[in-house]
Amino acid sequence: METDAVLDLMWIVVCGILVFFMQAGFTLVEVGFTRAKNTSNIIMKNLMDLSVGSLAFWAIGYTIMYGDSIGSFIGTPSLFYDVRDDMHNLFFQTVFCATAATIVSGAVAERTKFSTYLIFSLLMTTVIYPISGHWVWQGDGWLTSLGFIDFAGSTVVHSVGGWAALVAAALVGPRIGKYTDGKSNALPGHNMLYGALGVFILWLGWFGFNPGSELAISGDSANNVAGIVITTNLAAAAGAVVALFLTWIRYGKADISMTLNGALAGLVGITAGCAAVDPMGAFIIGIVSGIVVVFSIEFVDKVLKIDDPVGAISVHGVVGAVGTLLVGVFATDGGLLYGGGFGQLGVQAIGVVSIGGWAMITTFILLSILKAVMGLRVTEKEELEGLDIHEHGIDSYPEFGRDK
Amino acid sequence: METDAVLDLMWIVVCGILVFFMQAGFTLVEVGFTRAKNTSNIIMKNLMDLSVGSLAFWAIGYTIMYGDSIGSFIGTPSLFYDVRDDMHNLFFQTVFCATAATIVSGAVAERTKFSTYLIFSLLMTTVIYPISGHWVWQGDGWLTSLGFIDFAGSTVVHSVGGWAALVAAALVGPRIGKYTDGKSNALPGHNMLYGALGVFILWLGWFGFNPGSELAISGDSANNVAGIVITTNLAAAAGAVVALFLTWIRYGKADISMTLNGALAGLVGITAGCAAVDPMGAFIIGIVSGIVVVFSIEFVDKVLKIDDPVGAISVHGVVGAVGTLLVGVFATDGGLLYGGGFGQLGVQAIGVVSIGGWAMITTFILLSILKAVMGLRVTEKEELEGLDIHEHGIDSYPEFGRDK
Amino acid sequence: METDAVLDLMWIVVCGILVFFMQAGFTLVEVGFTRAKNTSNIIMKNLMDLSVGSLAFWAIGYTIMYGDSIGSFIGTPSLFYDVRDDMHNLFFQTVFCATAATIVSGAVAERTKFSTYLIFSLLMTTVIYPISGHWVWQGDGWLTSLGFIDFAGSTVVHSVGGWAALVAAALVGPRIGKYTDGKSNALPGHNMLYGALGVFILWLGWFGFNPGSELAISGDSANNVAGIVITTNLAAAAGAVVALFLTWIRYGKADISMTLNGALAGLVGITAGCAAVDPMGAFIIGIVSGIVVVFSIEFVDKVLKIDDPVGAISVHGVVGAVGTLLVGVFATDGGLLYGGGFGQLGVQAIGVVSIGGWAMITTFILLSILKAVMGLRVTEKEELEGLDIHEHGIDSYPEFGRDK
Repeated sequence: METDAVLDLMWIVVCGILVFFMQAGFTLVEVGFTRAKNTSNIIMKNLMDLSVGSLAFWAIGYTIMYGDSIGSFIGTPSLFYDVRDDMHNLFFQTVFCATAATIVSGAVAERTKFSTYLIFSLLMTTVIYPISGHWVWQGDGWLTSLGFIDFAGSTVVHSVGGWAALVAAALVGPRIGKYTDGKSNALPGHNMLYGALGVFILWLGWFGFNPGSELAISGDSANNVAGIVITTNLAAAAGAVVALFLTWIRYGKADISMTLNGALAGLVGITAGCAAVDPMGAFIIGIVSGIVVVFSIEFVDKVLKIDDPVGAISVHGVVGAVGTLLVGVFATDGGLLYGGGFGQLGVQAIGVVSIGGWAMITTFILLSILKAVMGLRVTEKEELEGLDIHEHGIDSYPEFGRDK
Repeated sequence: METDAVLDLMWIVVCGILVFFMQAGFTLVEVGFTRAKNTSNIIMKNLMDLSVGSLAFWAIGYTIMYGDSIGSFIGTPSLFYDVRDDMHNLFFQTVFCATAATIVSGAVAERTKFSTYLIFSLLMTTVIYPISGHWVWQGDGWLTSLGFIDFAGSTVVHSVGGWAALVAAALVGPRIGKYTDGKSNALPGHNMLYGALGVFILWLGWFGFNPGSELAISGDSANNVAGIVITTNLAAAAGAVVALFLTWIRYGKADISMTLNGALAGLVGITAGCAAVDPMGAFIIGIVSGIVVVFSIEFVDKVLKIDDPVGAISVHGVVGAVGTLLVGVFATDGGLLYGGGFGQLGVQAIGVVSIGGWAMITTFILLSILKAVMGLRVTEKEELEGLDIHEHGIDSYPEFGRDK
Repeated sequence: METDAVLDLMWIVVCGILVFFMQAGFTLVEVGFTRAKNTSNIIMKNLMDLSVGSLAFWAIGYTIMYGDSIGSFIGTPSLFYDVRDDMHNLFFQTVFCATAATIVSGAVAERTKFSTYLIFSLLMTTVIYPISGHWVWQGDGWLTSLGFIDFAGSTVVHSVGGWAALVAAALVGPRIGKYTDGKSNALPGHNMLYGALGVFILWLGWFGFNPGSELAISGDSANNVAGIVITTNLAAAAGAVVALFLTWIRYGKADISMTLNGALAGLVGITAGCAAVDPMGAFIIGIVSGIVVVFSIEFVDKVLKIDDPVGAISVHGVVGAVGTLLVGVFATDGGLLYGGGFGQLGVQAIGVVSIGGWAMITTFILLSILKAVMGLRVTEKEELEGLDIHEHGIDSYPEFGRDK
């Protein structure tokens, strides 16, 4: 292999390894933001998103997403992918797929049946994610043909996960005690350090997620990669700072969970446009993302009354959509503010709506079937005593007497 | 230095850094799977495996392993290695050596004297590991000459650690309360989140461990590296999924510690053959590893009645041996299923037995001497009250009242 | 871009990503070594060091440090840096800057007002750090012209943070209950596992910090990079082992927090000379660092009676200075022991003193102003009940009844 091609392959592998580690980040955030009695259940869900996803995407998902296009809608599936000189791409796309699946996990935490979740995770990685992914990232997909831009997956990965999470959380219903007398009650997470470590790990992994999506580093790609590293970091920093001050003003306290979600929102928001905007554009996208996520989390919680323990719907779904739209505003080549008119913005809207619709409708259908066949929720007793004991036969912290 | 050589050096350094991080993973798994009163002791053991190992391997171990061969059995030792253009290899091999040492730590946790452990760790990194490593990974070693294949160390690293762990755990004896009236009692670990984070970090580090063992990435190595990334990931995923369902069926609960060990078993099992098998072969090796580890842990615990708090003997020793043998079955070039006959399988068996014997005999001799000279175990009072207080003068979680 | 230039850029980006992750390490160490009631506050401080630092360094700090020199003292500032082919350097230097800021956090933990801390963090990343950094790392700085050597920042990063921490901790004053009747009381940290994981992550990040400071890997740089990896690792290992045995002898127990700080001291100590010394020199620097840190922590705590909950003053300030001086002793080209006379040692002393003075004087002035304007400390009630409740409205571990 030529030296430049080796460089590109190495870059993709290194970035894939960083994205892989995001699974640990998602696990930590979800565990930290929920109650101790469901710790092992959350670990198992995330570990299975990765494990089942890795097997399923290799077995069939990858070719559904990247196989020869059938009508610009779906790839030609083939079983057990084994093309010697494409293994680095299979790896990189596998860890992306696992990310999309695991976003749903947080929104349905603390009350969903483990067996049902496993089946949904399998369907997510073999049907929902690969097909809409095909529309954008396989060269012949219909959204690509329209000129839709989603460089690293604000929509392809995060919104798909976020909208699926919205439907799933609504169908599963809120946790016991979350809404009483029409009022939303806080059910505090049990360990802020886990949540924070998770966010640091996710931020770390995003340096693989976005810069790796260049899928090359040789030649002209080198400066692109470095530029993406900077836009990614600035948006995350801006999202965290803005969410901090916004909550400080609104609640009178510098809110840690909102600030952590602000950083994640900045990361999700910049993912679509990380290669298309300049540092100032990234800074502004981060600010907008940090504001949107705070109001969206409040809206979902208090107005929609959909119980999303970690804020996944807002962080990944809403901000993913907003970030995708903002490409049409801030892209230095073709964005509204750079003289490009409303054209790109319109195309972005088409992509956001069509992929959002796809994710919501398919999730609704699949979960409705699963609900009828095997049920979505654990029993009331199981939920109150914790999924760890009932699903996994374990207390995750047996030595620490808990008062709840 | 030529560009391709720089690429290879960079790859080895990056992979070495990933393998280095596995020490954090081992620490987390061991701490999480044991009781809170021994947390600091476990941290100190793992930190010293790395620190003592780094110094000892530089001071003499590296040349015992890779120095000019004396009779195909041992390298020519020289002190304080300092060969300017070989520092990347010294680093990569150092972190491998530290891994082998730290495997023993988990099996003897919660009752072993810290001073004795330190001396054994030193002997592991200067005598036991480098000599058997020489047989396989120094070009003139006698097992290499036979055609034995252990690409990244299912046997050279993991089995050596695992068999040493078997002998050490047997000599140290079970923890107080582990076996009463001939029955094995569960002594639950105190934090499943630590255990899970440890497994995610180990899985991450394995992307340095196996693909880095190509010791190059330029030219034809690039596709090899990417292929190894995929075989490694598929085997880990398969091991986790299989262990999950196997325990679900056997115990009626989706067992988290077995599932986590299933992922590790998949990783250990594929380590020998990661470069020799195709994705389907890796998938099957992962399945076999996940099954073997569950039955092996039960066997060691209930039949052999050897107390191994984290399952190190089974994960690293038994599965390491099985994975090494399976190279003779699934190697696409020379494996039994690919028309190669029993030849490779026979050579693999010779390597597994001879290195296993070496590790067990040397560990038995060294620990027997240490037992006579300074003792292996802490006192009963120290064990019951915890090693943290007695060996390190600290409570690792002083603010959290524990009921045990 | 030429292939070798791409390699260099990739190396800088990868190392920057590793240094980024050190923020998680600093957070874990500070949280683990302090009390549970301030967990969220510590997380927020560290997250803001990174976030505010990233924005501020991009907005103006980077050009103050690296802009065209005004009188060899300060760079020419310009706003919102956006030079397409220099983004990798901006990133690498940004994460370094965030590191310097975050060192102060540990020394003032558990009693400092969050709002005041935020403003100081901003001033640290836009004024204190970039200006003294200019003296050494911008080619025209006056200390560079003298021949001062600080390869990766024992002084430029760590001592600056450490001396600022000294002044800040003295001005803020000790925590309530730390000194009674002239005696120093231990206020134990609440989670040794967090502290240890933090040290592992910092050690990991240092493989970006030091080898990345070569700012290249192509050609002759490749062997330099590998050599730095080895000197860095040996010094850390030596620091840990020496601190272990020293405390074991002095206190009768193998002290975990001192051993962890010993590893960090080895890392800080080798940072200035990692590229200038050979493995044996690194080993000795690590030993000296491990000894110095133990006595320095005792001296600051018991003689100076300055309350530094994590030992940041000693680890980063004192050992940073010592490590910088030792370059004059152990540099294979020009060091005292290698026939170079006292010349280099004298230059090193000038750098250590002038940068130390700069950090202490500016910190004193800025914090004195902040003290007068808005105050440095929380109220006694807030401190006793914990900053988490009062500054952030949260209990970080709500389910675990604590006895303190």
